[in-house]
Amino acid sequence: MTVDRGTRPTRRAVPSTRPPGEGLATADAGGAARPVPAATVARLAVYLRVLTTLLDEGRTVVSSEELAAAAGVNSAKLRKDLSHIGSSGVRGVGYEVSRLTAEVEATLGLTQPHAVALVGVGNLGHALAGYGGFAQRGFPVAALFDVDPALVGTEIGGVEVVHASEIPRVCAERGVTIGVVATPARAAQEVCDHLVAAGVRSILNFAPTVLAVPAGVEVRKVDLAVEMQVLSFHVARRHGSVPAAGPVTGTTAPTAPTPREAVTR
Amino acid sequence: MTVDRGTRPTRRAVPSTRPPGEGLATADAGGAARPVPAATVARLAVYLRVLTTLLDEGRTVVSSEELAAAAGVNSAKLRKDLSHIGSSGVRGVGYEVSRLTAEVEATLGLTQPHAVALVGVGNLGHALAGYGGFAQRGFPVAALFDVDPALVGTEIGGVEVVHASEIPRVCAERGVTIGVVATPARAAQEVCDHLVAAGVRSILNFAPTVLAVPAGVEVRKVDLAVEMQVLSFHVARRHGSVPAAGPVTGTTAPTAPTPREAVTR
Repeated sequence: MTVDRGTRPTRRAVPSTRPPGEGLATADAGGAARPVPAATVARLAVYLRVLTTLLDEGRTVVSSEELAAAAGVNSAKLRKDLSHIGSSGVRGVGYEVSRLTAEVEATLGLTQPHAVALVGVGNLGHALAGYGGFAQRGFPVAALFDVDPALVGTEIGGVEVVHASEIPRVCAERGVTIGVVATPARAAQEVCDHLVAAGVRSILNFAPTVLAVPAGVEVRKVDLAVEMQVLSFHVARRHGSVPAAGPVTGTTAPTAPTPREAVTR
Repeated sequence: MTVDRGTRPTRRAVPSTRPPGEGLATADAGGAARPVPAATVARLAVYLRVLTTLLDEGRTVVSSEELAAAAGVNSAKLRKDLSHIGSSGVRGVGYEVSRLTAEVEATLGLTQPHAVALVGVGNLGHALAGYGGFAQRGFPVAALFDVDPALVGTEIGGVEVVHASEIPRVCAERGVTIGVVATPARAAQEVCDHLVAAGVRSILNFAPTVLAVPAGVEVRKVDLAVEMQVLSFHVARRHGSVPAAGPVTGTTAPTAPTPREAVTR
């Protein structure tokens, strides 16, 4: 079952064939088609980060309260999220860390191998290609593409940059499951179309543009300009209502004590 | 007025002093304190991108339908968003592009100068520092920090990397309004505290951890691992229900025709 998950302008023009569970996705990891809300999927990834840290620390059990606090949600939401994947803690004890980790990993499809194709290796794309963080998290960059003759043939992190016209062949050969679009906005739609034609159904878009994709293709968007502009709004709001942040005398403590609930990995 | 906007674990432990408008922020750009929902602020940034493109193309007027389609929202939502900042189009005509652009820019605080401090210039941080996209959008990187002796004293994009212990002095001197945290997770909270102590009230966090901040500090989060894992979920979902994306025969067209509603800049 493929379900629409929003931000796809094309879908609105098409007669709706959506099942009643719009906004839901289906976790098939356990064989049963249990609907998992889109927001839950994103939070599962956050819970997994916390769980991984706990595992590293040798912890065997975690309470829903602790897990929730570390993930920055309330514990009722956490319990509801985990019930979607069939995980329920033991009252008064909590969740078994290793078991819950495995369940979340299975739901997120992290037990299967992934291969990432990154298109556009100028500026941000080059940075992302050399970043190393994707491979570290189980998403190795298997293919790099660009159209710039100066870049095609060069290597970044041991992967050769191939001309974008080769996207269909190379993606099929290397079993690419996820495409990352880091081209200028004007090129992003064409690149996206090539990835989709090559069978890629999951796309992370860094280009500042809305991509139109057919049903069944999932697009996630990271727009750094939007993030900065939202922060700018909050700077402006403060300047309009409270005195601007002035020079600070020395290395003072934060203005309010903040409990260390953050979790590191 | 400072209003809580979620994802701050610390706030939950504190007796609530929240005004009824939780989740709302205040646009002071026009002098009047009109509440602007957080989601609207993010969409304003997207509308601005579309408007800038239209301006570049020499367009003077845009209908709410066209602007909405290009931004990937429905036109009712667009009109409601714009009403929050006091902009209403003319029935049957639409919005004046230059005027609406100016109104959105003023609301987002883009008419005032910004200065960005980026902390952590290894891997992703280095990539972001050299990216160039921040300055292009009006957010010049004014300061770079790290603790690695091998990095302190080097230059990236013409800005010298300074030791993180200098955050308070340097941020105050250079009028830093926005901090970008690109450190490993274990260092992120301390860096965040230093930025806050230095008077920085807007933080973009790339570190895979939840930052605890005092009231009045806005944190936006970009977690690439979470984005990839959400995409992984969708790959797994498809593999469980539909045949895996296999080799594609040649450079076929996308599986479904997709109207070009995407907007480029």
